[in-house]
Amino acid sequence: MTASGARSEWDDHIAVTPSGDGDFTADLSDGWVVGGGVNGGYLLATVGNALGQVVPGKPDPIAVSAYYLSASVPGPATISIRVVRDGGSVATLAADLVQGDPVHGEQARITVLATYGDLDRLPDDVGTTATPPPIAPREQCVSNSMAPPEVRRVARLMERFEMLFDPGCIGWAVGKPDGNGALQAWFRLNGERDPDPVELLMVLDALPPVTFDLGMPGWAPTLELTAHVRAKPAPGWLRVSHRTRNLAGGMFEEDCEVWDSADRLVAQSRQLARQPRPVAG
Amino acid sequence: MTASGARSEWDDHIAVTPSGDGDFTADLSDGWVVGGGVNGGYLLATVGNALGQVVPGKPDPIAVSAYYLSASVPGPATISIRVVRDGGSVATLAADLVQGDPVHGEQARITVLATYGDLDRLPDDVGTTATPPPIAPREQCVSNSMAPPEVRRVARLMERFEMLFDPGCIGWAVGKPDGNGALQAWFRLNGERDPDPVELLMVLDALPPVTFDLGMPGWAPTLELTAHVRAKPAPGWLRVSHRTRNLAGGMFEEDCEVWDSADRLVAQSRQLARQPRPVAG
Repeated sequence: MTASGARSEWDDHIAVTPSGDGDFTADLSDGWVVGGGVNGGYLLATVGNALGQVVPGKPDPIAVSAYYLSASVPGPATISIRVVRDGGSVATLAADLVQGDPVHGEQARITVLATYGDLDRLPDDVGTTATPPPIAPREQCVSNSMAPPEVRRVARLMERFEMLFDPGCIGWAVGKPDGNGALQAWFRLNGERDPDPVELLMVLDALPPVTFDLGMPGWAPTLELTAHVRAKPAPGWLRVSHRTRNLAGGMFEEDCEVWDSADRLVAQSRQLARQPRPVAG
Repeated sequence: MTASGARSEWDDHIAVTPSGDGDFTADLSDGWVVGGGVNGGYLLATVGNALGQVVPGKPDPIAVSAYYLSASVPGPATISIRVVRDGGSVATLAADLVQGDPVHGEQARITVLATYGDLDRLPDDVGTTATPPPIAPREQCVSNSMAPPEVRRVARLMERFEMLFDPGCIGWAVGKPDGNGALQAWFRLNGERDPDPVELLMVLDALPPVTFDLGMPGWAPTLELTAHVRAKPAPGWLRVSHRTRNLAGGMFEEDCEVWDSADRLVAQSRQLARQPRPVAG
């Protein structure tokens, strides 16, 4: 829902419909296309939306691990879910998202393991020693709305949200990457939609690859991404930081943190991705 | 194999035997007991050993995500493996480890997704900006062999390896935890066995929970652990660091790094675990 209570485009984009026996159908939106596929975070949130509808009383993602198998495309998809174990305060579930392809038949896109529970029922202790990323005030940041048309054509997902980049890590946008292996930005969905746990699964993989900051533009295919959702986010803007410390063997790890407007670290992820291949031209 | 080429106890402990249709049998050793179960890292390495025997030419773990379902016990176990996708340079596999129980029947212990490949065939670029943990020289460290008998009875896995704790993070052993949320130690298996990729899956979860350093002794059950193996480790001692930054809602994340003798960051993991309950007495 948006801040005004209206159903937002996000709710439509991640909608899933039960089709029996733990299966759901979805219609992946062409509004989340980036490069040659559909954004992996959007894909994860769509699967995550279905996962929350399976076990009564356990609607929220706590840990979600996704292995990406092939690039998703806009259009129909089937999500099959299996309850691995339901006991105590959490349930463990497995999910597979597949798409039909007239030429190749059924194609597996993503396979997932997850722990779901009820974030409202967790103890309210907060002993974090992590500190929020030092992002400049929003009015000093660089908006994704300033991206040139050729970038917006390739990364159509940028029409879905406001992303305000910290000026200290935006050199790559003008061909002068800062070289720190770090990106950070403010984030909010269109329509000022307030964040929820499933949205966080997307936000953890919405920024450009952190390799942009290292002078390596291009798409960085995710092999694996694990998300931990640690609390329900407070209403308002999110702050997102990405960081990498270990580029080697053609791969890199990308650590992401999402902080809410109440200064709480509400989600963390680490992904293993392939380094981008050099972009032609 | 040990440095002298002999088969080590580790090789026996993680041994698996194919039993057809992607199934393997294992016999979980009572030498890896800690608290009320079998060490989760040892369990992951045993599953990881089986996973490497399924797809020809893809013997090495690259990413492994494990969801822990119930506490394993010493004795027979069955590991069932399914190839989710095999294509290009990597394969994605799923594995489940179950144990029979005369009272409850078959009990699922751990469910796993993994990407396997051939670490020898990765490009040899190393662009890491991470630096090795600042652990004191081994002769200044505190050996696990100095642990009191009552600790060794509860944590029998400590007989399996040399673990030399940095003196800067061992206050918990004398009731004065340092409070930094960090542990670091040198590590080597018995018999001076040189490390390999499957062993790293255990090393990532062999130290005590990092919550010891925060004055919270006791067992911290893992909900989820994802390991990335980034290179084959060089022979010799490993250095291991654990760190947490986000204790909240009764859980904490634990990030682990393993560095080899050639100063290379060969493995990383993050796990989500439950905070230990206060120990009686």
